[in-house]
Amino acid sequence: MRVFIPGVDGYLGWSLAVHLAAAGHEVAGADTFLRRQWVEEMGSDSAIPVLPMTERLQAFKENFKQDLAFYEIDLANYDAVESIFKEFRPEAVVHLGECPSAPYSMIDVHHATWVQVNNISSTFNLLFAMRDVTPEAHLVKLGTMGEYGTPNVPIPEGFFEIEYRGRKDRLPFPRQANSFYHQSKVHGSNNIMLACKQYGTRATDIMQGVVFGTRIDAMGDDERLMTRLDFDEAFGTAINRFSCQAVIGHPLTPYGKGHMKRGFLPLRDSMQCLTLALENPADAGEYRVFNQFEEVYDVYELAEKVGRVASKLGLETEVRNLENPRRELEEHYYEPDHQALLDLGYQPTHDVEAEVEVMIGDLIKHRDRIEARRDALIPAVRWDGRREKVHYVK
Amino acid sequence: MRVFIPGVDGYLGWSLAVHLAAAGHEVAGADTFLRRQWVEEMGSDSAIPVLPMTERLQAFKENFKQDLAFYEIDLANYDAVESIFKEFRPEAVVHLGECPSAPYSMIDVHHATWVQVNNISSTFNLLFAMRDVTPEAHLVKLGTMGEYGTPNVPIPEGFFEIEYRGRKDRLPFPRQANSFYHQSKVHGSNNIMLACKQYGTRATDIMQGVVFGTRIDAMGDDERLMTRLDFDEAFGTAINRFSCQAVIGHPLTPYGKGHMKRGFLPLRDSMQCLTLALENPADAGEYRVFNQFEEVYDVYELAEKVGRVASKLGLETEVRNLENPRRELEEHYYEPDHQALLDLGYQPTHDVEAEVEVMIGDLIKHRDRIEARRDALIPAVRWDGRREKVHYVK
Repeated sequence: MRVFIPGVDGYLGWSLAVHLAAAGHEVAGADTFLRRQWVEEMGSDSAIPVLPMTERLQAFKENFKQDLAFYEIDLANYDAVESIFKEFRPEAVVHLGECPSAPYSMIDVHHATWVQVNNISSTFNLLFAMRDVTPEAHLVKLGTMGEYGTPNVPIPEGFFEIEYRGRKDRLPFPRQANSFYHQSKVHGSNNIMLACKQYGTRATDIMQGVVFGTRIDAMGDDERLMTRLDFDEAFGTAINRFSCQAVIGHPLTPYGKGHMKRGFLPLRDSMQCLTLALENPADAGEYRVFNQFEEVYDVYELAEKVGRVASKLGLETEVRNLENPRRELEEHYYEPDHQALLDLGYQPTHDVEAEVEVMIGDLIKHRDRIEARRDALIPAVRWDGRREKVHYVK
Repeated sequence: MRVFIPGVDGYLGWSLAVHLAAAGHEVAGADTFLRRQWVEEMGSDSAIPVLPMTERLQAFKENFKQDLAFYEIDLANYDAVESIFKEFRPEAVVHLGECPSAPYSMIDVHHATWVQVNNISSTFNLLFAMRDVTPEAHLVKLGTMGEYGTPNVPIPEGFFEIEYRGRKDRLPFPRQANSFYHQSKVHGSNNIMLACKQYGTRATDIMQGVVFGTRIDAMGDDERLMTRLDFDEAFGTAINRFSCQAVIGHPLTPYGKGHMKRGFLPLRDSMQCLTLALENPADAGEYRVFNQFEEVYDVYELAEKVGRVASKLGLETEVRNLENPRRELEEHYYEPDHQALLDLGYQPTHDVEAEVEVMIGDLIKHRDRIEARRDALIPAVRWDGRREKVHYVK
């Protein structure tokens, strides 16, 4: 299958290119290296070294005996996007080309606006290029479980049948996203739903949980094929950050009480799920939603879990709660469905500890890189608009 | 009360400035005259002549013995917006500064993107200026009844209590907007809801029906105080366009079967309702939604109603259905609540015919202006992406 990956230089984008090439698919990608700039702006860097794209492409070619068709373009430029569609004629597009950070979007008015404008523009450009150049192609769009927020009822996969005042309908499940980034994903979902209805677009909107892990099997022993791994407050996520903290003997730092529940999945499961979505495309005009995660975990418990694995590997750590820079529910009901991918054959890894052990093994080689950016581990972007490092609780 | 009106040069914006000044409020406004450009781009012009802003301001001053503090700025420029807040220190903001056209947003990728980017940026700039300069101010934001689409259940005012799989919650009512413009209003609603939660913003989000009418009492006999009235496919709306058609003996043209149901309200009712929202502000941190319309009507029946009034005034017309350039349900259930404003004291006009009679009286003086732009009355922007004039049905 010819698959186009906008955002191919990113954490998931690069991994997916490698995963799909190993599985025999033909891959094109686009990027303008914004993720590298954003992380630098946050005073940080990837824990795993990321090579310049020319070297990544060379390693890709050596390993998979095919060229990755790489386009250095800004996805906000419609003409550039359209020309890729005309040249590569993708059968599927996996849109990983958005700014993926909640804290980054909460910095100030300029960041809030930029994140939404960027994410909306890139999605529109893909939708219209698909409509006008490759109308049969299938869009796999990365949303986030964060679109739903934490309602007090179970969360279905995108839609629910309700009875209200004696009448029935199947409606989109209400979204209550808690950052302007998460809202940008809600906006994207709404725009795609409309494109499917009006243009007959095929789309799978992935409400993905928090991804963790440093590698997938297809990377093998070639270090050049590794993907980036961020640990700063804006682009790092819970388990990845805890693992980096463990490696340098920094306290593991859940925010607030830490009893927020979220869906998580290893990087390899994310790749497995995206591939299942690609291999089982949506119908013409169909807008379908998959909740993509392996299991729901309590963030505090995950920190303890990472601590236990680290201890087994001889790394002493402690869990210390930080003030929560976000304003969010820290104890809440959370029961999201995640059946659609299981029905397509998803086989969850179900072993967080084993994955964390692999991660720590990969990260420990780069201890110095993390140590050098230690300051980036403590958040300063607060949801109320202040920018001031949070303190340890107690 | 000091009220800031972004979009003060528009149909509702100018009317509101006049209405509030007559009621003794202090008014500031901002505009960069985009509405005039958009209508020109659609090959049309306001049926009612609109004076240059300097002359509008002069007339305003003569009638109300106060200056309208006018700022010629682009609302997408944060620094410019912030400086108005610092200077005028509004107690309330009525955000009428968005691009309000569904067809305009469906022209192509550039228009879709532009409408959403513009509307999101202006709303963000107002939200952040309020947060940082006038946190106690009340935002009255114009949404649209079109945010809800046409679900098969009653439509509450913004939120509904549901029971789902044995658990209960109060959730935002699902939105199913049917154009990229309407989606931009959904995006705005979602962003404002989050700002209320995170920044303690006070906001009233007005899900407004389709407004019609040429005047409000406060305009009196001074023609210079009249507001614009568009009839082109993008910026004209049903009753206004039917009235313009009647004036030049053009068929009145509902789209498709014409049995779409929508909420409508006269311009004078819109002003009355917005004033009620201003006089009864939301609490700090409260995000509330008012469904603002007088009554639900069937579009085809409204065309017949306009025809009857025209006939009474000696204008012979016929109702002729056009192909529907939009893809939408043409026969559907529609039962939206509209109780909140009635509870605040809204007294609906309840007399469409009388209002249409006033409109036709105003418009007939400008018959030549409408006749000169006759071509703009037949839509060419189709929801499927083609741009090609629609034909009469049968």
